[in-house]
Amino acid sequence: MKVEIWSEITCPWCGLGSHRLDKAIDLFEHRDEVELVHRSFPLTADVPGEGVATVRQALKRVHGLSDERLEEGPRRVEALAAKEGLAPYHVLENMVGNTWRAHEFLAHASAQGKNRAAWDRVFRAYYGERRSVFTVEALVELAPELGLDPVRTRQVLTDGRFRQQVRDEGLQARRLGATGAPFLLIDGRHAIPGAQDTAALLQALRQVWNEAHSPLSPADTEAEVCGPDGCAVPATRPVGV
Amino acid sequence: MKVEIWSEITCPWCGLGSHRLDKAIDLFEHRDEVELVHRSFPLTADVPGEGVATVRQALKRVHGLSDERLEEGPRRVEALAAKEGLAPYHVLENMVGNTWRAHEFLAHASAQGKNRAAWDRVFRAYYGERRSVFTVEALVELAPELGLDPVRTRQVLTDGRFRQQVRDEGLQARRLGATGAPFLLIDGRHAIPGAQDTAALLQALRQVWNEAHSPLSPADTEAEVCGPDGCAVPATRPVGV
Repeated sequence: MKVEIWSEITCPWCGLGSHRLDKAIDLFEHRDEVELVHRSFPLTADVPGEGVATVRQALKRVHGLSDERLEEGPRRVEALAAKEGLAPYHVLENMVGNTWRAHEFLAHASAQGKNRAAWDRVFRAYYGERRSVFTVEALVELAPELGLDPVRTRQVLTDGRFRQQVRDEGLQARRLGATGAPFLLIDGRHAIPGAQDTAALLQALRQVWNEAHSPLSPADTEAEVCGPDGCAVPATRPVGV
Repeated sequence: MKVEIWSEITCPWCGLGSHRLDKAIDLFEHRDEVELVHRSFPLTADVPGEGVATVRQALKRVHGLSDERLEEGPRRVEALAAKEGLAPYHVLENMVGNTWRAHEFLAHASAQGKNRAAWDRVFRAYYGERRSVFTVEALVELAPELGLDPVRTRQVLTDGRFRQQVRDEGLQARRLGATGAPFLLIDGRHAIPGAQDTAALLQALRQVWNEAHSPLSPADTEAEVCGPDGCAVPATRPVGV
């Protein structure tokens, strides 16, 4: 069973959503038959270059919220994350910026067979360690522990060879009906928008599994067959002819 | 949606089952998205060479039935076929024999992109026209109207290059749980044994289609997402930073 999850790295519901999906798969009876694939849902195309801002600054500028009001959302995600065993998970006191290079880094790592490890590492670097994921330098630093060659990693981030793939993954999500991240797809058909909680995700995994594995109950159970020992009309096996 | 049907040519429930499946697909709303593939379920491995017998002879020898009793089964299929628009459909007054060459012929035609046309033609030749499908000569005669080169067709029937494929198809059906023919598989998962009637097949097609296309209803419909215009916690798109 294939489970695909589209995420934007700086979307706090995506980091938490990925954690919830991991937990749901861990709890799933058929977890050994689940193939998890992370995909890019870039949402920061128009954020200029490597410029970064604090989440506080961003919320203030975009939404014009008061200091008190703007803390509510981020604190809510942080509290949920802590409650669900994902800590530290820094949202309010974090930086935001253009994530295109990070998505290219993740596409490069995926091409080297490190899809899940790289996404986990980048989420942890960003939310757990408050590290930048916005510059070539910051991303190349993550390469060695993923078994990626730093020189080659710097090269692909500079020449942009995964840019089109990142773009295509985002377009694919939109074609599938996604309007935001995270967005999940089970077995290429069952779409689940947003960061559903672990129980809902587990239920979805079970539902799709059961649908795929439940035999049909044909209406006419008296259907006739021919077998090696003859048919209802034994036209086959005229032994001794 | 892929629909596979395994058949033995001389199994009268298979010829009728194929007709029913065609009708069910014709009635199916999403017929344009159905890929139908016929496969071999050889059941006459131990019928010697090209020796043929009449169905009457075969039934008498195998089952020791009286003339009157032995007519019941074949007449029943013939009556059903006529009632369902498949006529002529000769069962009782037909010949049976070893079908291995016919299956090899069908595998050869399938490799040339003529899977459906060839199965339809062979069923029609056998049940509709009471032609032999048991000799190389008889099969080569069918080649031209299917767009198959007669010389090449004779060659592959002589050198047995599709013998293993025919064997494998039969084994595949048994591995899927088939104990007789016909045997259907929808989308690689939903098995339907025997010659179900058209209504039951149509219902099965609809059921599998609906399962595959019904969106999940996640338990938590309040799931949070980040979009191009921000998140529940708008950490992305710090416009103007």
